[in-house]
Amino acid sequence: MELFLTENQTEDMRLSVRATRVLHHEKTPYQELLVVETPQWGRLMALDGFFQTCDRDEFVYHEMGAHVPLCTHPNPRRVLIIGGGDGGMAREAARHPEVERVDLVEIDERVVECCKQYFPQIAVALSGNPKVHVHIADGIQWVQEHEAEYDVVIIDSSEPIGPGEGLFTANFYARVFRCLKDDGILVAQTESPWVNAPVIQRAYRGIRQSFPITRLYTCAVPTYPTGLWSFTLGSKKYDPLQAEPEKRVGTLGELRYYTPEVHRAAFQLPVFVQRILAEAEAEEEQP
Amino acid sequence: MELFLTENQTEDMRLSVRATRVLHHEKTPYQELLVVETPQWGRLMALDGFFQTCDRDEFVYHEMGAHVPLCTHPNPRRVLIIGGGDGGMAREAARHPEVERVDLVEIDERVVECCKQYFPQIAVALSGNPKVHVHIADGIQWVQEHEAEYDVVIIDSSEPIGPGEGLFTANFYARVFRCLKDDGILVAQTESPWVNAPVIQRAYRGIRQSFPITRLYTCAVPTYPTGLWSFTLGSKKYDPLQAEPEKRVGTLGELRYYTPEVHRAAFQLPVFVQRILAEAEAEEEQP
Repeated sequence: MELFLTENQTEDMRLSVRATRVLHHEKTPYQELLVVETPQWGRLMALDGFFQTCDRDEFVYHEMGAHVPLCTHPNPRRVLIIGGGDGGMAREAARHPEVERVDLVEIDERVVECCKQYFPQIAVALSGNPKVHVHIADGIQWVQEHEAEYDVVIIDSSEPIGPGEGLFTANFYARVFRCLKDDGILVAQTESPWVNAPVIQRAYRGIRQSFPITRLYTCAVPTYPTGLWSFTLGSKKYDPLQAEPEKRVGTLGELRYYTPEVHRAAFQLPVFVQRILAEAEAEEEQP
Repeated sequence: MELFLTENQTEDMRLSVRATRVLHHEKTPYQELLVVETPQWGRLMALDGFFQTCDRDEFVYHEMGAHVPLCTHPNPRRVLIIGGGDGGMAREAARHPEVERVDLVEIDERVVECCKQYFPQIAVALSGNPKVHVHIADGIQWVQEHEAEYDVVIIDSSEPIGPGEGLFTANFYARVFRCLKDDGILVAQTESPWVNAPVIQRAYRGIRQSFPITRLYTCAVPTYPTGLWSFTLGSKKYDPLQAEPEKRVGTLGELRYYTPEVHRAAFQLPVFVQRILAEAEAEEEQP
């Protein structure tokens, strides 16, 4: 038997991974949730057909989403994660000794429960870690109800279709700005420069409307479309390029992707990515 | 009609791209050669089922393969490219004003002819560029017959199965060492850290046996397996991390990936890639 799980990464491109077993399949109130066992990437979770997380490469996305902002902020005590129901981002955030509390706000309880069951290493911080508090709630509403409370907010959303859609708007970034303290930092996952340039441009422009420092950085996630993934960081005060991750990285335990050098290198964008941002800036200046 | 060209990237992972037309398909004396038109990546050439080059992302691989060594060498006058029948590497090498002559040694004449026909922008330097000399010949033999002649040698081979196989051995790297001048630089494409770690380790150990400076660097090629690709550089004298690409990049014309910052960032390896190299070094030290 040849069983392959296929993601239609775009209309014209498909990535298929061999699956030896379907471990879980359900329609939650928000999305279709599938967990399969794969020889290539270990266990893999897909939401609405998009590969979300898998055992063997999840460390890239989670380390780069969490440690770049947390090593940029000199004293990150309170962290908010919007989405991120698999728990990987919370696990990485909770490694920081400075971090006292992580609020994880996930809309779909089934994602949290499934990940606890099938991805114990990714979800490890979701049960029994006193720093981590899981809230099954709407991230947009949560952000509206909290003001000047967080040092770092990480938007670990799914694609800008489905439940993640409202998390890519300028309005939402403005609300995140208000729920951050005066020197707070926002990071949002913003898809692939190769096939999602409009998503990046929209997020970049939206974040720049609120935050004085806005920077894109990339990392290499093989199970995401094209393998090149971006995060966009908005900061009220601290520039991630002026950060000194050397002072902090030693307190984090064993890492698999992030280093202080990788932190800085991730912001050195290829020319074609710089042009995507330049286009976004040019559009901004039009009346 | 749904026509997709699928590469079995590994036993357990497949990338498929929609094709609107098959432009060319033949069995050459060395391999199966296919050119298709794709909405996602423009025209795409596959050899023995492996995606080799395509219009929309070829600049990444070619700029990073050529400009990293050529901007590291202070005066690269003679360049040898082994493989690279599509002409992209030659096109990039020929941009350097210092480069007087590029010898391109490709074993399969049909690749050269097909690329001239179907990829005129990639193959542009293969006809009418007085610097570029195409030789239909065996790269292994060519290297044996030339001594202390080249400033930079770029091994732009296909996979280490089929015609590319002999280009990944320590013996071959030792021969390349001899055909380089006293301060020469070798660069070899060495596949993906995610799924080809043994290839990288073999190349890295092989190059270290001859070259005092050996360094791996990466770039993001979406149509290659996992999207993260590596080159291994061996240098007799110049360290690519001490290079000053700023002095040279202005002479190259418009680039789409490479910048001096990207040059340096490409050598900042994620922890899991550092470990692949550390393992290779550890094996070396065993008796």
